[in-house]
Amino acid sequence: MADIEEKLELMERRIRDLEDRMAIQQIIARYGPAVDSCSTEATANLWAADGSYDFGGAPLVGAEAVGKLVDLQTHRAYVARGCLHSMSTPVIEIDGDHAVATGNSRVYLHDGGDWKVERASANRWEFIRTVDGWRVTKRTNRLVDGSEEARVIFASGVDPNGTANPVG
Amino acid sequence: MADIEEKLELMERRIRDLEDRMAIQQIIARYGPAVDSCSTEATANLWAADGSYDFGGAPLVGAEAVGKLVDLQTHRAYVARGCLHSMSTPVIEIDGDHAVATGNSRVYLHDGGDWKVERASANRWEFIRTVDGWRVTKRTNRLVDGSEEARVIFASGVDPNGTANPVG
Amino acid sequence: MADIEEKLELMERRIRDLEDRMAIQQIIARYGPAVDSCSTEATANLWAADGSYDFGGAPLVGAEAVGKLVDLQTHRAYVARGCLHSMSTPVIEIDGDHAVATGNSRVYLHDGGDWKVERASANRWEFIRTVDGWRVTKRTNRLVDGSEEARVIFASGVDPNGTANPVG
Repeated sequence: MADIEEKLELMERRIRDLEDRMAIQQIIARYGPAVDSCSTEATANLWAADGSYDFGGAPLVGAEAVGKLVDLQTHRAYVARGCLHSMSTPVIEIDGDHAVATGNSRVYLHDGGDWKVERASANRWEFIRTVDGWRVTKRTNRLVDGSEEARVIFASGVDPNGTANPVG
Repeated sequence: MADIEEKLELMERRIRDLEDRMAIQQIIARYGPAVDSCSTEATANLWAADGSYDFGGAPLVGAEAVGKLVDLQTHRAYVARGCLHSMSTPVIEIDGDHAVATGNSRVYLHDGGDWKVERASANRWEFIRTVDGWRVTKRTNRLVDGSEEARVIFASGVDPNGTANPVG
Repeated sequence: MADIEEKLELMERRIRDLEDRMAIQQIIARYGPAVDSCSTEATANLWAADGSYDFGGAPLVGAEAVGKLVDLQTHRAYVARGCLHSMSTPVIEIDGDHAVATGNSRVYLHDGGDWKVERASANRWEFIRTVDGWRVTKRTNRLVDGSEEARVIFASGVDPNGTANPVG
């Protein structure tokens, strides 16, 4: 019996790891539909109460402030024209009740007869496990415009001890 | 023993939920390669026999009709030029033998030296669990061109009781 | 007891299948951040020691050679301008210690005020299970520029016994 209990416990841990990964994928998957429909609450609910979103410039601090990004004049103008926020499948590293996901995001903007890629970015998402499930504690987004910052995000996602190689 | 049986049953339910999510992701992942290789049968097989696909205009009704979309003149012309149908990771909600997935899709079209984004859309996929696995009962696709319909799809995916906020 | 052991074994197989799929998704998810940060080792580590990468022309053979693709002049020039390598969620077929994943990839390149789609491709990834986890044994990448080769990759991913339909 002790042997079976042990096996059950090990399997339960493996199931939980899979559930954690699926849950984190789902939070990131929710971001695009939430902001592209200007859903303030659905956007805010992805973040921890004191979580932040830094996309260059002064970060938005607190879930409520993040939710309100859908009311920004630039965002409303995007949505009125027609836009998609799309996220890649992220690299996920889980450490107990914390997790980091690293991937890209793109913003497609309606532009006459087709769509242009208005933004293309590197993203680092940090998460905490709460009683209500995983929540974003910090998201950092940097344009891939040749600057070092985006490369540092990507490098840290695939090689936690490494640094982005110099390019130029 | 009763205790162990109960634990096994609970774990089995958790495994099945993960399998359901993975299976639904896989159906959506199959769509692009199926239509971009003009594979009639592989496309039709994703749908339930009486499932439909509404991408504006008169919906295609029945798996066979959906499979034949790869023979549409517009589709053949895309494929001859070179095109990709790419889907985002969807938000998935499962309720017993039914499920809804909400995400975006983009069509990239070869255009001289590079590719343009020919379509960018909001998608709602509805599924039923059959004896052969999950199948699409209804897919709705609306261009993100600033019109309300795409925002309604996205809003319903992240906030089932909500509505898209007015924009403009 | 025998009955419970059997149930445990069956569940363990189902968990392993989910873990395999998640692991393969993660390898593909790592590719973009690895090459976009010019991380030689993180790129090489995705491949089996004798694995190859064929993106047209002479294939790169061996993990070390694949890792060094980040030092190619064309790649360095992309990264210096700002680029994203983004992969779709692949169709995954697992057969014991071998697996095949089929999906698309796109390269977005900074181009003045926005980003253009510099490459759009069909991808076939072949994997082997090693003592260190899944590794790529062969990746084939073909531009979707209307040529037959990309369609053959997509068709083989959704219908292993089929062939791409003629188009034109």
